Amino acid sequence: MKKPWSGRFTHKTSGIVESFTESISFDKRLWKHDIRGSIAHAKMLAKQGIIPAKDADAIVKGLLEISAEIESGKFRFRQELEDIHMNIEAELARKIGPAGKKLHTARSRNDQVALDIRLYLREETEDIISKILQFQKTLLLIAENHIDTIMPGYTHLQRAQPVLLSHHLLAYMEMIERDKSRFADSLKRLNVLPLGACALAGTTLPSDRTFVARELGFKTVSANSIDTVSDRDFAVEFLSCACICIMHLSRLAEELVLWSTEEFRFIEISDEFTTGSSIMPQKKNPDVAELIRGKTGRVYGNLMSLLTLMKGLPLSYNRDMQEDKIPLFDTVDTLKICLEIINAMFPGITFNKKRMSATAGEGYSTATDIAEYLVRKGVPFREAHEITGRIVLHCIKKNIGLHELDLKELKAFSQAISKDIFPCLEPAASVRERSSYGGTSPSQVIKQIRRYKKILS
Amino acid sequence: MKKPWSGRFTHKTSGIVESFTESISFDKRLWKHDIRGSIAHAKMLAKQGIIPAKDADAIVKGLLEISAEIESGKFRFRQELEDIHMNIEAELARKIGPAGKKLHTARSRNDQVALDIRLYLREETEDIISKILQFQKTLLLIAENHIDTIMPGYTHLQRAQPVLLSHHLLAYMEMIERDKSRFADSLKRLNVLPLGACALAGTTLPSDRTFVARELGFKTVSANSIDTVSDRDFAVEFLSCACICIMHLSRLAEELVLWSTEEFRFIEISDEFTTGSSIMPQKKNPDVAELIRGKTGRVYGNLMSLLTLMKGLPLSYNRDMQEDKIPLFDTVDTLKICLEIINAMFPGITFNKKRMSATAGEGYSTATDIAEYLVRKGVPFREAHEITGRIVLHCIKKNIGLHELDLKELKAFSQAISKDIFPCLEPAASVRERSSYGGTSPSQVIKQIRRYKKILS
Amino acid sequence: MKKPWSGRFTHKTSGIVESFTESISFDKRLWKHDIRGSIAHAKMLAKQGIIPAKDADAIVKGLLEISAEIESGKFRFRQELEDIHMNIEAELARKIGPAGKKLHTARSRNDQVALDIRLYLREETEDIISKILQFQKTLLLIAENHIDTIMPGYTHLQRAQPVLLSHHLLAYMEMIERDKSRFADSLKRLNVLPLGACALAGTTLPSDRTFVARELGFKTVSANSIDTVSDRDFAVEFLSCACICIMHLSRLAEELVLWSTEEFRFIEISDEFTTGSSIMPQKKNPDVAELIRGKTGRVYGNLMSLLTLMKGLPLSYNRDMQEDKIPLFDTVDTLKICLEIINAMFPGITFNKKRMSATAGEGYSTATDIAEYLVRKGVPFREAHEITGRIVLHCIKKNIGLHELDLKELKAFSQAISKDIFPCLEPAASVRERSSYGGTSPSQVIKQIRRYKKILS
Amino acid sequence: MKKPWSGRFTHKTSGIVESFTESISFDKRLWKHDIRGSIAHAKMLAKQGIIPAKDADAIVKGLLEISAEIESGKFRFRQELEDIHMNIEAELARKIGPAGKKLHTARSRNDQVALDIRLYLREETEDIISKILQFQKTLLLIAENHIDTIMPGYTHLQRAQPVLLSHHLLAYMEMIERDKSRFADSLKRLNVLPLGACALAGTTLPSDRTFVARELGFKTVSANSIDTVSDRDFAVEFLSCACICIMHLSRLAEELVLWSTEEFRFIEISDEFTTGSSIMPQKKNPDVAELIRGKTGRVYGNLMSLLTLMKGLPLSYNRDMQEDKIPLFDTVDTLKICLEIINAMFPGITFNKKRMSATAGEGYSTATDIAEYLVRKGVPFREAHEITGRIVLHCIKKNIGLHELDLKELKAFSQAISKDIFPCLEPAASVRERSSYGGTSPSQVIKQIRRYKKILS
Repeated sequence: MKKPWSGRFTHKTSGIVESFTESISFDKRLWKHDIRGSIAHAKMLAKQGIIPAKDADAIVKGLLEISAEIESGKFRFRQELEDIHMNIEAELARKIGPAGKKLHTARSRNDQVALDIRLYLREETEDIISKILQFQKTLLLIAENHIDTIMPGYTHLQRAQPVLLSHHLLAYMEMIERDKSRFADSLKRLNVLPLGACALAGTTLPSDRTFVARELGFKTVSANSIDTVSDRDFAVEFLSCACICIMHLSRLAEELVLWSTEEFRFIEISDEFTTGSSIMPQKKNPDVAELIRGKTGRVYGNLMSLLTLMKGLPLSYNRDMQEDKIPLFDTVDTLKICLEIINAMFPGITFNKKRMSATAGEGYSTATDIAEYLVRKGVPFREAHEITGRIVLHCIKKNIGLHELDLKELKAFSQAISKDIFPCLEPAASVRERSSYGGTSPSQVIKQIRRYKKILS
Repeated sequence: MKKPWSGRFTHKTSGIVESFTESISFDKRLWKHDIRGSIAHAKMLAKQGIIPAKDADAIVKGLLEISAEIESGKFRFRQELEDIHMNIEAELARKIGPAGKKLHTARSRNDQVALDIRLYLREETEDIISKILQFQKTLLLIAENHIDTIMPGYTHLQRAQPVLLSHHLLAYMEMIERDKSRFADSLKRLNVLPLGACALAGTTLPSDRTFVARELGFKTVSANSIDTVSDRDFAVEFLSCACICIMHLSRLAEELVLWSTEEFRFIEISDEFTTGSSIMPQKKNPDVAELIRGKTGRVYGNLMSLLTLMKGLPLSYNRDMQEDKIPLFDTVDTLKICLEIINAMFPGITFNKKRMSATAGEGYSTATDIAEYLVRKGVPFREAHEITGRIVLHCIKKNIGLHELDLKELKAFSQAISKDIFPCLEPAASVRERSSYGGTSPSQVIKQIRRYKKILS
Repeated sequence: MKKPWSGRFTHKTSGIVESFTESISFDKRLWKHDIRGSIAHAKMLAKQGIIPAKDADAIVKGLLEISAEIESGKFRFRQELEDIHMNIEAELARKIGPAGKKLHTARSRNDQVALDIRLYLREETEDIISKILQFQKTLLLIAENHIDTIMPGYTHLQRAQPVLLSHHLLAYMEMIERDKSRFADSLKRLNVLPLGACALAGTTLPSDRTFVARELGFKTVSANSIDTVSDRDFAVEFLSCACICIMHLSRLAEELVLWSTEEFRFIEISDEFTTGSSIMPQKKNPDVAELIRGKTGRVYGNLMSLLTLMKGLPLSYNRDMQEDKIPLFDTVDTLKICLEIINAMFPGITFNKKRMSATAGEGYSTATDIAEYLVRKGVPFREAHEITGRIVLHCIKKNIGLHELDLKELKAFSQAISKDIFPCLEPAASVRERSSYGGTSPSQVIKQIRRYKKILS
Repeated sequence: MKKPWSGRFTHKTSGIVESFTESISFDKRLWKHDIRGSIAHAKMLAKQGIIPAKDADAIVKGLLEISAEIESGKFRFRQELEDIHMNIEAELARKIGPAGKKLHTARSRNDQVALDIRLYLREETEDIISKILQFQKTLLLIAENHIDTIMPGYTHLQRAQPVLLSHHLLAYMEMIERDKSRFADSLKRLNVLPLGACALAGTTLPSDRTFVARELGFKTVSANSIDTVSDRDFAVEFLSCACICIMHLSRLAEELVLWSTEEFRFIEISDEFTTGSSIMPQKKNPDVAELIRGKTGRVYGNLMSLLTLMKGLPLSYNRDMQEDKIPLFDTVDTLKICLEIINAMFPGITFNKKRMSATAGEGYSTATDIAEYLVRKGVPFREAHEITGRIVLHCIKKNIGLHELDLKELKAFSQAISKDIFPCLEPAASVRERSSYGGTSPSQVIKQIRRYKKILS
């Protein structure tokens, strides 16, 4: 099979080179975007009189046929044609003859592949945003159902203060809301038409890039042809956003793993979303959560891969950049399936409200409430803090809870204490009173739920 | 020295632990932000009646004194006080007595450190944006001066087509314009007040977070206290933006290194920005460019460091997060100095216009122009491309340039060729005719220069 | 201050360049190795007649004086002298006059810095190996003390089978034994003399590199001068070994954090190795473990930093390579302090044997023992596995433990069961019977303890 | 299809979970190793009387049949059977009935997968070592052919001193010799039998692990069952070695790209190993070298991926670890193809000896020789260095080469100069005289060639 660029060459490409340099095995996933871009390009060529209208019509018709063939699995991709662009163009020429040889006018593979990836990534970024949205809706429902479920809030994985489960879950809501916002911002820089930059310097032919941009829904047209074919920022930025997003999922996954232990016993994940052991039949493993956590490394690695690739590359296009696709595609697939599965898994999680609530009161978790009580009574915070510390130490030594102290004992630590301290020692009251903005009180949490209802609708 | 949290403890902290867990050696750089945050906090406490107004006045006065002492280098930081927060608060208490013990009311170190970093990073992000802007102004001046300098445009580091040097430099303008845009977007998520989230659950005291936000210039107040103390997205996002930015600088640095070689001889960097060799006195090494390229790894490493740190951390605050500062500070310092020095270095670069221009015409760099000429004559692009390939091969065999062919020879390859082809073979004409939007023609480049004049003013 | 390489230059170095390119602020830590290397070099120069013996004597005397001055803190390092090599050499010349100007004969900074780093890293690698050994001794003592402490063994963080605590701790022994072995292997490639490669091509002077190698305790002499000044493999390999080592520590740290929770309650870390909270006085946080876990990211980042730096660097020395030191030094410091502190912390950990043992029997942890019992009775394993699964499900439904079943109930699941099954249901028996090589039985664990006693002595 | 661990479960696994948790799509590549391991295991079970000999015979026969079916492409892998282990075991049971259900006795998937990966990686590591050896042989041949080819040696990509091309190529020989040595060292820790650790604690059945180790060619048996199923060090170490190795290839690739430029013109890569441009027919791009350089990021990313995955994982097996395979397989494939193709490409490279030699003498590349000449005449090195600097500056100003100076001019710089300086100014002499050990003189290079002839035979 003759290469389209073979004119100048006297020997043919070595076999191992063909398989080393080919990209069709992975870039064929871009076929839809390649065809869509070529159709817009052909229309522009005709509109500008660069090729005859009837040739453009033949090209469009031919491309639509090829599209149907790929869709139905009938198209045969050929490694010796290197990439998706050549596979489609060669078939087009076979189908429609000379007109097909006019399609590649006023463009090059350098801007064409940039176009394909941008179209692909725009679509996938939007899909990811909508998958995050789906999961937010799921989280919101669960948060609403647990407006009165009290659990221990942790710092350093030590029980710190009682909080609402809904408040805890809404912390993840905030994280992925930021993820959405980051992905949305990235679209600004992604949604730019590269086609028409040609190899690197633009063209001498009268192309109309604005027309193509409009056809393909791009907001703007790239302003510097050399930058256009050298640039993979949009891919790195996407990978960065993906890293932060899966980092959030890894934290949630870690909590699901912890909460599923017999030590925590906060949740039970439904059978559909756990798997068993080949040798220990009693096991019910949180595999899905573990795998999400594990896949985090993969996405991080993909970012590092592309950053390394781009480091120190002189302008403009270099073949190294072909290696952008594997980490990109893998990240898209990984992030999407992780979002889907966590969304599917959550409704099947049973929260052990009794256990959560019981442990929320243990571990002197209302100690801070005593300190703040003392502040309200006029004790400087640092002093209040120290007094509370001594009270806790006293309880630990006697192996009793804070609520088991009587007023006399308490007064021995500070005369500022009177019997109105007792409600502060209850987890439910502790939660209820933390009504500063963003705090864990039901009033505050309901406020946030309402806010998200608006955001998500 | 007694620890503020020592009430509950019966043994004192081990010496090695003190030096292992301290952060004052690096977080003291946050002193200004810590004090600024505490002043706003004290005012709020008084306004809300949580502490008496006169205590707040004493706190503010004390903090301003401490600020002056640190500024003038008189303040003694103490490792046993662990971090910047404790160092300042302890000194405050020493200075103003009991009132100083009231400052830490309705906050905790978890939200305080988040505040300090956000204030710090907001300032530095703005500074970086302005440093990029400075460099853009420098680039613009140089681009304007080289509107008629022709150089070879490269793909695969092979001469591909003649381009304007100004066009090439403006490719970097585009890259760092995107950097600015990314940093600006990151401010949205950074410019949020965390203070008032307290340890993790908010407070039972009547704090007014909106007031504090206004005092400190924050656009919004964080909506979930658990998320607030668990979140380091803003730091990861900053590092991601920094990675892309320094990746751009690494590419420019690579080009400066290449262009400084005796093989390219495109530029000479001024003596002030090069260094010599201890054993080879004739050497004039592009060390600054090499170091920028080398420091890229450092910034990448910092991102990887923080991503790894955050992976799988359960909510809310964990001590691991103290390790966010070193990579953050190092990245800020590295990126700023790299931007400064490249900006300082550029005006001292002498471009060897003659050499650039001469090489721009070598290597059959106007071959594409022949192909596009043929297209204009009605030859399908792929055919035109093949014909051109054969012409080039013919020249290579004869070891002559394209412009050395006569019309008869040319016509032997295609009857479509007539004598109007000859202007196409000139680099200057090749450049001038690439006037598609974003192309390398002077008309297009001037358009972009005008656009940037507006953007940068 | 005149630069040693300034002969060819007409302008002096810019101020910002000086601070950008200097390395003295961090490479001064190499002073001992630099002086040691220079002394050996001077002796060789004299021995070979390249410089007079009395000059070599003056050099050695001068260097020893400088050494004493640095040791005692009297030496003033100067940024304008760029690096440790120039700082020492300039002072030497000031001290002893013309003889000092002869030291740099037959070497260059390129091979000199390679020498310094190799000497430094050899020393630190050996120190790290000995710190690992120390920690192994600590682990061994604790393992010996817990030869009868039973705990739950986990897979997927679900209780799986009862194991010995000593067996669990010895898993870490294996990991760090491999670390030692990796560090030891890396010495082979590290312990090679680079000095004498000069700038990149060797020297025309009659140097004797073997003599220098012997003086400095190097096993071999580098065989290719270009490679010698281009090579940082030894640094990357060190960082790789460090990454694996701290990854092990991160796993141990994670377990310490988990085991310290109120949910697990397996251990209590002594007060000296925990810290408190500024707002929650009851907290006793496993900060040291958290920080070790957090510092893992830092070491990973350092490896990524150096790998990125080296990627695609043409031969031979490039200034980028100066950036090798910060990640290297930081990794050495981080790994050493982590090893030290974990070694110091371990003896102060109290293991809650009662709690560990009690939980070891919960969660149907002896289910596998039933399956293996059935296998011994001739039931194919997969069948045995299924039967056991049904037994466990039956118990879960009835909310009882395996040991609460009577023989009749058991026989309903399989006729192969008789009353000799009951011992299998005891955790202690389960542990005792797992006596396959490397298994958790006391006999096997004691065998390993004995093996390590030999290894560590 | 019933899951082998489904006894305890009341609902079946969700569809999305099946595709999320499956590994058969990638771990089927381990089929050979899985079967080989199972055969050795079955023999041991029979030898120890754990299963009847005739069952073992049936198992072995069945497995060999399956092996043949997979080999010939007839075997149907099923996603619902999750992984390669279950796919093979299920088919075995279908084939030979009850005996097949006895194979999984005294092992679990945790140690089985560790076995498979170790067998796989041992094989691949050996293959990589032999591929490096192949490339070394190729390099050696080329080095031998270029024992008299002089080229410029570079530091900072500036011409520094003339060197031999063979010396330069042998620098890579050294690098990959270290790679071989690192891979060989890693085998020590890789070549250890994990099977028999079972789920995590060993077995109560009388297995003989030493027998299995011998059958499978393992040097030792793992000593701690918990560590055995928790450990992926061997994979991380392999990836570290691979990173260093491909980093070396990236440097060589960078040089091939540089040397192929029209600016350097040091080499021409044969047509078979370059590709053309779709729009610029004159281009002959060093794509293979570029892709090798680009793939470096991929291997780095894979290491980062696995390090991240392992960070902070509690013992023993966690499902996250299933994610070790993709980065491992990808690295094996990438490194092997890169080694193969660079080995295939090298013999087709034409070195432009004339150009190399001509440029070797330019750029005052023998300046160091003047300095060393002066040293031999008794001038202290630093002074010699300065004098040489002034000579070079003088030549630059007069725009002449060093060899164009006459003796009078030279003496004006130093009276120590006499006419025997002139040979030093010739590149060939400069090279010849650098005969210190490891230096660039032909005598030294021939010594190294002889050394490698021994090593490689």
